[in-house]
Amino acid sequence: MNRSLQSFLAQEQQEVNAALNKYIKQLNIPDRLRESVLYSIEAGGKRLRPILMKLTCEGFGGDVKKIYPAAIALEMIHTYSLIHDDLPAMDDDTYRRGKLTNHKKFDEATAILAGDGLLTNSFHVITSSDLYTDSEKLFIIDKLAKASGLEGMVAGQYMDMMAENQQITIEELESIHRLKTGRLISFAIEIGGFLANVSEEMLCKLKEFAEYQGIIFQIQDDILDVEGEQELIGKQVGSDINNDKSTYPSILGLQGAKHYKQQYVNQSNECLTALDLINANIAILAQYLADRNQ
Amino acid sequence: MNRSLQSFLAQEQQEVNAALNKYIKQLNIPDRLRESVLYSIEAGGKRLRPILMKLTCEGFGGDVKKIYPAAIALEMIHTYSLIHDDLPAMDDDTYRRGKLTNHKKFDEATAILAGDGLLTNSFHVITSSDLYTDSEKLFIIDKLAKASGLEGMVAGQYMDMMAENQQITIEELESIHRLKTGRLISFAIEIGGFLANVSEEMLCKLKEFAEYQGIIFQIQDDILDVEGEQELIGKQVGSDINNDKSTYPSILGLQGAKHYKQQYVNQSNECLTALDLINANIAILAQYLADRNQ
Repeated sequence: MNRSLQSFLAQEQQEVNAALNKYIKQLNIPDRLRESVLYSIEAGGKRLRPILMKLTCEGFGGDVKKIYPAAIALEMIHTYSLIHDDLPAMDDDTYRRGKLTNHKKFDEATAILAGDGLLTNSFHVITSSDLYTDSEKLFIIDKLAKASGLEGMVAGQYMDMMAENQQITIEELESIHRLKTGRLISFAIEIGGFLANVSEEMLCKLKEFAEYQGIIFQIQDDILDVEGEQELIGKQVGSDINNDKSTYPSILGLQGAKHYKQQYVNQSNECLTALDLINANIAILAQYLADRNQ
Repeated sequence: MNRSLQSFLAQEQQEVNAALNKYIKQLNIPDRLRESVLYSIEAGGKRLRPILMKLTCEGFGGDVKKIYPAAIALEMIHTYSLIHDDLPAMDDDTYRRGKLTNHKKFDEATAILAGDGLLTNSFHVITSSDLYTDSEKLFIIDKLAKASGLEGMVAGQYMDMMAENQQITIEELESIHRLKTGRLISFAIEIGGFLANVSEEMLCKLKEFAEYQGIIFQIQDDILDVEGEQELIGKQVGSDINNDKSTYPSILGLQGAKHYKQQYVNQSNECLTALDLINANIAILAQYLADRNQ
């Protein structure tokens, strides 16, 4: 990774983590429940969604400080989804990013409630912000609820569970990921543009770019599960194959998956050109995400 | 129960059920996930919260049609909380209102996701309504997220779980129930007043009335668990004692609990008098809730 991108990402992660911590710590909640929430919040992660939001906003000349409440709400939703996905009844994971999963560190009931609480309070982060007008707040809440709800991420996670041990087509795989991971990534990018007051027409093109990012992100995730380095990706290489999960490489082969990804990268670059963002930092980030090794 | 109250409640239940069904059915979600959501939605329940909201709004001369989106969002949150509370890791219940619990009818993963989805989409019900101004929507979303989130219902459920098999005081019991069941009941009543445009001062008194209703409701629930009729209450009499749960009767004795409840009923009636609602239908409902046998 380019050194200046690396230090930028590290700095952004710190800013997002600080804002998340500040919000959670000022709430009046039982100590151990707060500990459980903070445990998963502090497990960190790359904060890619907030960073996508910020660089999109910056690319259009927006005031990047405005992204924080929306970005924090988004990370709370993302964190809740990881806590619930790891539960024994779902993916039954013991570790995430090298740390015990929430229900292993605490207990299942606490993990369920920490997830429910993070989800619910993500909307409160928006209503209680003083950076947005009423109509901005409602736009963000509406998009966030749709992206993460019954027609969005929740449906994707459900379809993903149902597809386990099933032979599925590339179209089915893609429609699962468009919902499961794509919708929150799209939300990040759309809101970045929205907060920079881009035109309706530009927002439409931006959504197309956002959709490609979600798919590219997932294909690269699947590729790393085959040829990544365990210390870098933070989970066992080959875990998808061991779990009998359909992935881009399992359907298309490793080279096929890389080729498939490249087609989306080309389309994504065409969008960036049309949006006059091809020389912006968001283009550097997009390129990094497509080629990342972690 | 008074026959006219009975038929009013039945009619209201139908209206709320129809509106809930309509919202869920127009969503684009996987069939079996929708079935699971509708299963718990259709398990019905008394719809007391929407009815409290409606009669409060009516008592202040408001337009009762305006309550529906807020009431439906509230019932979706209430329904999600029952699905998650019934999970094996939480209360581990097999039946609710005489029907299999969601995770027994479907499976745990589906139940978790149905709950997550209901919770998330409850906020979408508000953003997508055409009955509210932007500022009304934000007021409702803010109150709903606070009432049901980490400082509200979720904290109450957490404290309730932690209190199992523990000796607790009446103050501790009450603080659990103020959060676990009280906050959503309060939300119902407050929003009923808010939508009827009551003054700040009246809203403050109304909140006091709402808090009493939450406590009275819970005391009566505990009393019915001791002396109720199984067919009417829809669960086994004595289940709290069998689960070694602290209740008002277990701490105060049955007569003590009845006396304790009556003090709150008196204070509640004083509020109704101050609010000039003592002759309104909300007063009849409050009396019924305090004395109900189901």
